[in-house]
Amino acid sequence: MTVSIVGAGPGDPKLVTVRALELIRGCEVLVYDRLVSPLLVAEADGAARIGREGLTQDEVNELLVRHGRRGRAVVRLKGGDPFVFGRGAEEVAALEAAGVPYEVVPGVSTLTAIPGLAGIPLTNRGDAAQLTVVTGTSADGGELDYAHLAATPGTLVVFMGLGRLAQIADGLVRAGRSRDEPAAVVSQLSWPGAEIRTGTLGTIAEAARGLPSPAVAIVGDVVGVALRAVRAA
Amino acid sequence: MTVSIVGAGPGDPKLVTVRALELIRGCEVLVYDRLVSPLLVAEADGAARIGREGLTQDEVNELLVRHGRRGRAVVRLKGGDPFVFGRGAEEVAALEAAGVPYEVVPGVSTLTAIPGLAGIPLTNRGDAAQLTVVTGTSADGGELDYAHLAATPGTLVVFMGLGRLAQIADGLVRAGRSRDEPAAVVSQLSWPGAEIRTGTLGTIAEAARGLPSPAVAIVGDVVGVALRAVRAA
Repeated sequence: MTVSIVGAGPGDPKLVTVRALELIRGCEVLVYDRLVSPLLVAEADGAARIGREGLTQDEVNELLVRHGRRGRAVVRLKGGDPFVFGRGAEEVAALEAAGVPYEVVPGVSTLTAIPGLAGIPLTNRGDAAQLTVVTGTSADGGELDYAHLAATPGTLVVFMGLGRLAQIADGLVRAGRSRDEPAAVVSQLSWPGAEIRTGTLGTIAEAARGLPSPAVAIVGDVVGVALRAVRAA
Repeated sequence: MTVSIVGAGPGDPKLVTVRALELIRGCEVLVYDRLVSPLLVAEADGAARIGREGLTQDEVNELLVRHGRRGRAVVRLKGGDPFVFGRGAEEVAALEAAGVPYEVVPGVSTLTAIPGLAGIPLTNRGDAAQLTVVTGTSADGGELDYAHLAATPGTLVVFMGLGRLAQIADGLVRAGRSRDEPAAVVSQLSWPGAEIRTGTLGTIAEAARGLPSPAVAIVGDVVGVALRAVRAA
């Protein structure tokens, strides 16, 4: 293996996997996201450390391929899990096209850390056990299918939707969801500044005003079940 | 903290988090699931190690409360993530009711490890970025809502549905999905015996015959995108 595509976990550096830490400590080149803990970056002692910010996706792909071709131990460290609404697949495709061997190390996703760290279960044994996850915008940059989403049972999780939260909540209400349906926003889960705000579809956009990214919104009856203070790292 | 509810990750012991390993190594009582790697159980050197198999959920809750009340360092080690279709929430509720302090350590979920380890993305940038996750049976033990699921865009992941896979595939087809829609089953992801079988809604139940648990099924166009051999641990 020369290039490893590695999930750093949701924020807390202790939520990285044992395999990820082993690779970070042994790498020669580290390419890391803005949302990765500086404590993890510091573990790549002696490696060339390259922040991803300011680079295009093509430039990142090119960087991985170039160093990988030279046989260097490269770690591409990504926030959360590399593939859950991340762009790990594009980097893997670039490496495959170039014939560079690679390894993928999955990480703890913000999605699955919500129940344990924010106290909001994703499914409720009393209800239908269905979980729906969408990004804040649809792939073509247009609107979500609110009519279908409003009729979907279970819990709805919205990734990367903070900037459009008012619009999304409004879209769900206009399509038939109750304004009183419980909703929460979790900001910077497992980071030192972790914060959770709760409300309803009618109030959540106002309640979440000013929260920093990354954030996820959760809509459904599970909000309020066993809710407790969000844990900071 | 006396009781820690800890995710062990999908199978490979190196996919446990650094925090989880620290807690396992320092615990006095370890209560572990059948699907947890023996290598992780062995890390709890000197601790009382109790397999969960054969115990009822009430007995597990009672065990955690009893040892927790005595102030012992207890680790409850669960396969994957403790809360993604797991019963971590019931154990947390029992500890809260008993006033026993606890900590939750999220793990790498089988769900989010699918793209990296089985090569099947959960969302496709070309399609609507929606992911739907259901358990193989609905909460009341009855049927899934096939009419709604058949009309749901994006990727469908079915947890714990191996025994009912033929029924689920048939239900989706009867509700309007094409028999030719791509489907895959991933068995024992990240374990030494990891195996993936692919087909369509019309063929997947037959293709998956004989695969051991745990397994997840994936339905949608993402099956076949960037598909490569599943990686064993």
